[in-house]
Amino acid sequence: MIIIMKENATAGEIDHVIAAVRDLGYKPHPIYGKDRTVVAAVGDERGKYRIANLESMPGVDSVVPILKPYKLAGRETHREPSLVTVRSVPIGGPEIVVMAGPCSVESREQILECARIVKEQGCQFLRGGAFKPRTSPYAFQGLAEEGLQLLAEARAATGLAVVTELMDAHNLPLVEKYTDIIQIGARNMQNYYLLSAVGETRKPVLLKRGLASTIQEWLMSAEYILSRGNYCVILCERGIRTFETETRNTLDLSAVPVVKKLSHLPIIVDPSHGTGHWDLVPPMAAAAIAAGADGLMIEVHPHPEEAASDGPQSLTEKSFAALMQEVRRFVDAAGRGQPAGPR
Amino acid sequence: MIIIMKENATAGEIDHVIAAVRDLGYKPHPIYGKDRTVVAAVGDERGKYRIANLESMPGVDSVVPILKPYKLAGRETHREPSLVTVRSVPIGGPEIVVMAGPCSVESREQILECARIVKEQGCQFLRGGAFKPRTSPYAFQGLAEEGLQLLAEARAATGLAVVTELMDAHNLPLVEKYTDIIQIGARNMQNYYLLSAVGETRKPVLLKRGLASTIQEWLMSAEYILSRGNYCVILCERGIRTFETETRNTLDLSAVPVVKKLSHLPIIVDPSHGTGHWDLVPPMAAAAIAAGADGLMIEVHPHPEEAASDGPQSLTEKSFAALMQEVRRFVDAAGRGQPAGPR
Amino acid sequence: MIIIMKENATAGEIDHVIAAVRDLGYKPHPIYGKDRTVVAAVGDERGKYRIANLESMPGVDSVVPILKPYKLAGRETHREPSLVTVRSVPIGGPEIVVMAGPCSVESREQILECARIVKEQGCQFLRGGAFKPRTSPYAFQGLAEEGLQLLAEARAATGLAVVTELMDAHNLPLVEKYTDIIQIGARNMQNYYLLSAVGETRKPVLLKRGLASTIQEWLMSAEYILSRGNYCVILCERGIRTFETETRNTLDLSAVPVVKKLSHLPIIVDPSHGTGHWDLVPPMAAAAIAAGADGLMIEVHPHPEEAASDGPQSLTEKSFAALMQEVRRFVDAAGRGQPAGPR
Amino acid sequence: MIIIMKENATAGEIDHVIAAVRDLGYKPHPIYGKDRTVVAAVGDERGKYRIANLESMPGVDSVVPILKPYKLAGRETHREPSLVTVRSVPIGGPEIVVMAGPCSVESREQILECARIVKEQGCQFLRGGAFKPRTSPYAFQGLAEEGLQLLAEARAATGLAVVTELMDAHNLPLVEKYTDIIQIGARNMQNYYLLSAVGETRKPVLLKRGLASTIQEWLMSAEYILSRGNYCVILCERGIRTFETETRNTLDLSAVPVVKKLSHLPIIVDPSHGTGHWDLVPPMAAAAIAAGADGLMIEVHPHPEEAASDGPQSLTEKSFAALMQEVRRFVDAAGRGQPAGPR
Repeated sequence: MIIIMKENATAGEIDHVIAAVRDLGYKPHPIYGKDRTVVAAVGDERGKYRIANLESMPGVDSVVPILKPYKLAGRETHREPSLVTVRSVPIGGPEIVVMAGPCSVESREQILECARIVKEQGCQFLRGGAFKPRTSPYAFQGLAEEGLQLLAEARAATGLAVVTELMDAHNLPLVEKYTDIIQIGARNMQNYYLLSAVGETRKPVLLKRGLASTIQEWLMSAEYILSRGNYCVILCERGIRTFETETRNTLDLSAVPVVKKLSHLPIIVDPSHGTGHWDLVPPMAAAAIAAGADGLMIEVHPHPEEAASDGPQSLTEKSFAALMQEVRRFVDAAGRGQPAGPR
Repeated sequence: MIIIMKENATAGEIDHVIAAVRDLGYKPHPIYGKDRTVVAAVGDERGKYRIANLESMPGVDSVVPILKPYKLAGRETHREPSLVTVRSVPIGGPEIVVMAGPCSVESREQILECARIVKEQGCQFLRGGAFKPRTSPYAFQGLAEEGLQLLAEARAATGLAVVTELMDAHNLPLVEKYTDIIQIGARNMQNYYLLSAVGETRKPVLLKRGLASTIQEWLMSAEYILSRGNYCVILCERGIRTFETETRNTLDLSAVPVVKKLSHLPIIVDPSHGTGHWDLVPPMAAAAIAAGADGLMIEVHPHPEEAASDGPQSLTEKSFAALMQEVRRFVDAAGRGQPAGPR
Repeated sequence: MIIIMKENATAGEIDHVIAAVRDLGYKPHPIYGKDRTVVAAVGDERGKYRIANLESMPGVDSVVPILKPYKLAGRETHREPSLVTVRSVPIGGPEIVVMAGPCSVESREQILECARIVKEQGCQFLRGGAFKPRTSPYAFQGLAEEGLQLLAEARAATGLAVVTELMDAHNLPLVEKYTDIIQIGARNMQNYYLLSAVGETRKPVLLKRGLASTIQEWLMSAEYILSRGNYCVILCERGIRTFETETRNTLDLSAVPVVKKLSHLPIIVDPSHGTGHWDLVPPMAAAAIAAGADGLMIEVHPHPEEAASDGPQSLTEKSFAALMQEVRRFVDAAGRGQPAGPR
Repeated sequence: MIIIMKENATAGEIDHVIAAVRDLGYKPHPIYGKDRTVVAAVGDERGKYRIANLESMPGVDSVVPILKPYKLAGRETHREPSLVTVRSVPIGGPEIVVMAGPCSVESREQILECARIVKEQGCQFLRGGAFKPRTSPYAFQGLAEEGLQLLAEARAATGLAVVTELMDAHNLPLVEKYTDIIQIGARNMQNYYLLSAVGETRKPVLLKRGLASTIQEWLMSAEYILSRGNYCVILCERGIRTFETETRNTLDLSAVPVVKKLSHLPIIVDPSHGTGHWDLVPPMAAAAIAAGADGLMIEVHPHPEEAASDGPQSLTEKSFAALMQEVRRFVDAAGRGQPAGPR
């Protein structure tokens, strides 16, 4: 940590900071420049939230951290990429995974039909929400346990692994019982109680990036889960909020190589939420693979215009098949293995 | 709701949309323009999440809602400003309220000292976190029930009402027992399970705006609480996330008059989180009053450089007294009543 | 255009709006709903900036435009993709173009060395700045005409076409004399005088997207050039400004399919400015091709650590060769033709 | 400047960086930590754009600047607030200034009527655009020299000083001849050629903040003007671009105290562009004064619904008079002098 003093800081103020740094267990290195003094504090910065308060001391201009605030999520302590294996499918290895299905589980017929489509395209995972975070209290909120049971039935029928969202810790035992991967949605990325709760399980967790979350905050949220002993965390970029309105969110694909550089965790991309329009999904799915993503999450619905949620961004069977065909060419170009599929 | 057809939409596609609108229970009004056709759908848009899916139909360019999606939170159905009364202090009336105190409750001595400072300045509410949402799992997470007990002790000693954050629904009985106002933090603004849970109580709720939440989404979150029967909701603007880094967040004071125009709910402002630097708090507190806010939430700490969290944005006793003196002048200018205080 | 009246608008106010709409030459269609009245105004909206002022009339809530504000840049009036041909190289056709070179022209030796590298990799365009927009007045501002002459010399030596930035209209004759494509930088995207000036020439223009510009505003800036009779406009996505700080900007690759949907103009991507870090450039270049871009603009420097500007985002000869090798695989996957190169 | 090495940087890489720092004329201070090494480079950082390229060297993680990049605009070298005096009216002193008038000069009648309103309210400056930056090439672009002549006529009739926008350097002689203050619009904040051109004059310059510009970039743009010898620069906050759509921009009032802390330059606020809706202008004008602004810029039009531009955000004579009355109460509360006016 570097403490930058104000230009007009007095010798007494500088000494006071040096003493405070020492009190906190760090070794201070003052450097007296022509215009300003800076004090470098060397030592483990795990206690940095304490040292940040030095900013409140007289004569201090600002405090700049040096070390990344995450440890378990970082490349520095875990150089090799992590592999999360779900029902024998490794995520984060050479093979690309595709998680597809409807936004919400709506009916037995709908989810079984979706599962068939997803299976036929050679995907490994069925997505579908049983608990739905909706902006409006008047909108469809999901089928709850009935939805989870239908997902399990679809899994039994197809062999697809299931990924579904957990919105609140009190439903954890229920969701854990039915799902193969617990999804934490973008709006809950900093729901620390929920993160800690899933950290206590040994079920794989798909952690979506928050709409206004920096990559560093996202890795800190992963750190919450990892620090409780659950090492099976998969990250999912799904778009951030910007001023642009042609797309529902701005899909930040550069997050993929940034995460690959900073962290060992697998990362997949959700171009359905990332764009909000079904016709933008195929090019952005291809781009995600080219950027280095370990997989995709795609919304598919047999009849998007009847969907209870997210119809405009859902692909039909036909358009999803076309997407998969296109994506496979880019998976090849990336030198990555891929779903077998009906090529 | 207005359905805008694509320029090259066929007559069949337009008829299909008109039929679909009618099926959903709306009365369609097609308007055939030179370049495009638009279909206006008149009727209660409560079911609009269904109609939005019309965007998936062939020939449709986009769907534009007309009515606001909130009802109970809106001015349209509740023309007069709402008053939320807490321990005989009305919030949203002519008198300005000030909620002040430390970011976290750290010790008996600290919270009692804070309460004394806050009381002496004529404020009506003591704030302090017992459960703390922290970006890092390694940071101080709050004293939990012990913190709540200390807040209650400070209330007994001073007569100040207490406001503290609830982070997860399972702690609701505990927090409800000790606090006068339940605070929902910015990161939980779209934690719908939590919103519904506090909606079931009859305890006043302070709902902070999310970092990346539009004002409309914020009012929709209020709607979650109101729709469960809890009408005591106070909004709190605390800064949104932008590209600017000189401040911790960008305090969006224009949200104050916008909320006053759209909603009947009281709104206060938190310039401490909004700016992140103690020396920016007094001018932004004054500006909040001038913009029409019903109150302020301010972080105060006897020794900011020793604070377990948010030291850099906390005021000392002395700087808080100066702030209150300045704020009172603007409260007068605004023609608002105000805390008695040691003027 | 749809004029949405306030819920409590009086009959008189509604009539006043209807009359005003008619006065402006539109045919008004009032629709009387249960809660609100809306007035649809059918007709060419070219004069829409006038009609937007209806928002100032008593009883009006808001005014929603229907037609896109651009005409010449839009797909609606020009269904086929436009081809911009520069020194026999078509941009916007099946073949991908690559424009590479240093941020700034620094010396004869440097630019000739860059041109050799770029040529050897099979690229068609040499980029290099002679006039540099720099945040600081104390930073290197470019070699001006000497830089242009050096670019021309590099063109003569290699046959590469040249693209360089024009910062102010008074330098247009000078820049036009030396360059094959005039680049308009992100900071000048809404410098309307400059746009009009290059619109008067018949030299191809590369129009970079502004840091905070919506896609609609970007197309409106293209419209300025097109409306003056210069139809040779190439768009370039180079990242927008968001809250994320791991990257210099957030490269909005979804702009590529959005532009392809809305406009007939070719679009290329600059992942060097888009990310700001050389090691993020190759994956984002590959992703740009997968997203459907017609080409790339890449910063290359023989010795990035000695560059006068943008060293951290420049590739060396070796890393650029590796990028081109990787990109070619994705060009193949996209079914696009490509530079011959030393494969 | 602090150069942070990667965790796995080799001794050779560290030595290479130390040598490079020394070559650039700085004194390097390497600090060897447990996890990482950092190299502090002490010396004048005016050449910092060079040293930033050290980021390209092997083993370097990042480079953190210490000194502010601006000098003449900063408080460090100019502790006292600067006063810019225009036609005997000091800007930046105790007295608040108000610049008001229409978005565009439209006709002799309109501008004289506006000037009368502005004068009667005791304001000191008449604003009005003769050259208008418009998103659309089909929108009204201003009356050009005729507009400037009408402004001069209005000045002669009322004694008000005139402020008008310059969009391109080639019009500088023309605009300089008629105006008292040259306005540089938000879209031109980083038009460096234009900044340099007005820096060569001795006419006061009003520099609006760019829509996506950080405060530091804004001060760097002021530095361009100051570094050419024109010390009469007034800053104007007018809203930044965020995701919120209820307002046209997000007025960043915290920029006022931040600028006051970092710089000696006067700063005024434009709540008309900042909000985009006339009814939000009065509360935000009051808030700007409370935040410490030195003045206001307000759009006023005798008949907003007939305005050629920006009607929805323009006040009428009546609403402007009400605003001024309200603002005066806050000017008093702020202990600032104020326009005489018809109180």
